[in-house]
Order: sequence, then C-alpha cells, then structure tokens
Amino acid sequence: MKILITSGGTTEKIDSVRGITNHSTGNLGKLIAETFLAQGHEVTLVTTKQAVKPASQPNLNLHEISNVESLLTTMEGLVKTHDVLIHSMAVSDYTPVYMTDIDELEKTEQISDLLSKSNSENKISSQADYQVLFLKKTPKIISLVKEWNPAIRLIGFKLLVDVPKEELFRVARASLQKNQADYILANDLTEISPTQHHAYLLSEDDSFEAFDKEGIAQLIYEKVVTHD
Amino acid sequence: MKILITSGGTTEKIDSVRGITNHSTGNLGKLIAETFLAQGHEVTLVTTKQAVKPASQPNLNLHEISNVESLLTTMEGLVKTHDVLIHSMAVSDYTPVYMTDIDELEKTEQISDLLSKSNSENKISSQADYQVLFLKKTPKIISLVKEWNPAIRLIGFKLLVDVPKEELFRVARASLQKNQADYILANDLTEISPTQHHAYLLSEDDSFEAFDKEGIAQLIYEKVVTHD
Repeated sequence: MKILITSGGTTEKIDSVRGITNHSTGNLGKLIAETFLAQGHEVTLVTTKQAVKPASQPNLNLHEISNVESLLTTMEGLVKTHDVLIHSMAVSDYTPVYMTDIDELEKTEQISDLLSKSNSENKISSQADYQVLFLKKTPKIISLVKEWNPAIRLIGFKLLVDVPKEELFRVARASLQKNQADYILANDLTEISPTQHHAYLLSEDDSFEAFDKEGIAQLIYEKVVTHD
Repeated sequence: MKILITSGGTTEKIDSVRGITNHSTGNLGKLIAETFLAQGHEVTLVTTKQAVKPASQPNLNLHEISNVESLLTTMEGLVKTHDVLIHSMAVSDYTPVYMTDIDELEKTEQISDLLSKSNSENKISSQADYQVLFLKKTPKIISLVKEWNPAIRLIGFKLLVDVPKEELFRVARASLQKNQADYILANDLTEISPTQHHAYLLSEDDSFEAFDKEGIAQLIYEKVVTHD
C-alpha cells in the first residue's frame, strides 16, 4: 500500500523575518511513518524543515513544504497517487494579508479596503506602539482530498484545547462527515505531554482509545490494514 | 572573561497552538559561542528550544527561553554578572494582544477599546473569512542592558532587508548610539545564504567587514579580546 502522511506545522510569512507558526514537532507523524515502514509499506511523508523525521530509507519519500500554499500544490499531486492519507500536520487556518498601525486603521472608513492592501516593505517597520495584522482564511486542504481522489482512505486529525469529551467527539465527527473522512483522530492539547498522548480514533459509529503516541500509531496502522 | 550570548528567535503566542516566530536558526550564535569556548572563556548562551546549540561542555551554561517576557526576566539577572553581551537573538518586536473577526472590528467605535481586550478561548475559533490580530510593541531589551550593567561591553545586531549599504550603516549607528552599544553587527538578509553571510561590525568610527559566519565570529572575538 502507498501511504501518504503529513506531519509538522505550517508557517505563514508576515514578512521576510517573521511568520505565524502552528507548533508541531512532527513526532507523531514520524512514529506513524515508521510503523508503516517497518511493515514494508511505501511511505510518502510531507513535512516541514523544522519537524523531526524518520531516518532516510528506501521505502520513504520525503517532501518538505513551508506554508499552506506550498502544501496545497504538493498534496494535489500526491493524493491522486496514494491509497491512504494520514493528515496529522498542523495546518495554519489563517495567512497574513496586511499589517499596519492603528493610525491607518482609524483613518480608514471601509475596513474591507484594507483587506486588499499588501505590505511593500520587506521587513515591516516597528515604530508604532500597536500594530494590526489582517489575516484571511486559508483553503481547507482536508476538504479537497476526496475531490482529488474519491478512492483514497482519509484519516484526519482534530486538536482541541481543554474541552469536554462530548464536544471533542462532536467536533471530530462533524469534521469526519464534512470531509468524508474514514477516521478522525481526536485529541485535546491538555492531554498531550512528553510522556502521554491521549486520543480517540473515531469512525462514523466506533471509537478506539489510545494513551500514547505509540498507541496512536498502532491504532491507525491496524485500522488501515484490517480494512484491506 | 564571562561572555553572555543570545541566539535563535523568540516566539510570541497567539493562542495555545499558534505563535508569531522570528526566524533564526541559531547557527551564528552557536559559532560565536564555540569561538569563545575554544579560547577558554566562560560562556552563557540564552537561546530557544528550536535553535541549534554547541555541544554540552564544562564552560558552557545554557538557558532556554521562549518569548520576550521570559527573555527579559532571564537577561536582567545575567547581564549584571557578565563582562560582555553579544545579543544575536532575533527578538520579536510585537506580541499578540487580541484576535477577533472583521464584524467586531466594524462594530467597534473606539478601536483603542479592542487593545485592552484579550481572548478567553484557548484556541481561537477559525470560522470567519478574515480575522484581525492586534499586537503591541515588546520592551526593547537592548535598550535596558546598560541600565542593568553600565560596565558590560555590548555587541548588538541589526538585520535589515534589501537596503543600500548607507542606510544599513545609518540605522546600525543610530542603534549603537541609542543603546550605548560598543559595536553593532550590521547585516542584510539578502546577503545571507547557506554559504555566505556578509556583515559589517560597526563601532562609532570604524567598520570591519566579514563574508561568512566564521568570519563574523572571528571578528567579534578579536574586538572583544583586544579591548582588554
């Protein structure tokens, strides 16, 4: 089976020295990749320069991306040629459009006018006491996966922060239906530490629990292979 | 001599999963630290989790910080007990205050009211097509160094992007005077690549040129030790 895995977190540039980063070490994606590689599967890992990666090996194909735009371009081609996508990457929801100071904002009658502006400077000046950064929503890559390849098996990820289990399940299952995913790995940041990683792998009707990254990787592996 | 070096780039949290990062690998700070360590000096390196670091060794003391606030607290104590500060860290100019959607912004009569708000959610919702992030200036740590320790020798850094040499020198010398630095290492992002790093070490009246990171580390080392 040809397995496509994403890991790490994207960074959206504000200017040439600053960016908005979604934090993710890449540890879980690395472990999932290693689990499939150990069983002889062919793995393509789409990740970032900063993320940890498995050791180089014959069945492992690496693609480094930085922002959502480069992820989108890379994924469109790869989704079409793989059997399974395990999309564990922390993808930026928003990307910077325009940064300015409060003066310009107060002088602007139509705020929507600022949304079509862009910064000409390479490094945005840092004189004003306050600045304001306008951001726009990035394309939701997970929602495009089944359009690109209706036959691919899709395992999505949903990370929330400090919510009841019921809400985590509700939001994860909504994502499962909306994106036609086969499973969603649902987890809460408050239950992730260097020694534990509590998570649920949810299908439409079932849920399976794991307590650390090894357990999550094993759970995903089993569900992907037993389906065949 | 007790040498204090900063390296890497700070990250200011937007919420528990996103942050604004100043990109810096820490390579130059690492090389500078290694140059002083090789000559038997005692080095304290203040850096980030993500930055590259010298190998652990008896004369090297490491402090990991994340954002400007933690840098400020750490530096105040250390500046008072060191002879030299080489401040190569890329420090965030702004830190997030409040993130909201365009609707709330348009409904707000006094924009300054938004500057005292803060987000109660742990992970800011990602429903709206556009969002707006208010940021406030961080304290300029380099401007506090000589207040904390008037006797410390201070080497600051100024990174600009794609400017004429005259402007780079003008801005760097303004920083030298304003912060009572002994030297400013002035460089332009367009002249930094994996194989080159063009820079000028500027004092009030002199300038010294280097063409790679090793050259910069050597130049700083010479100026710091020959002064004694």
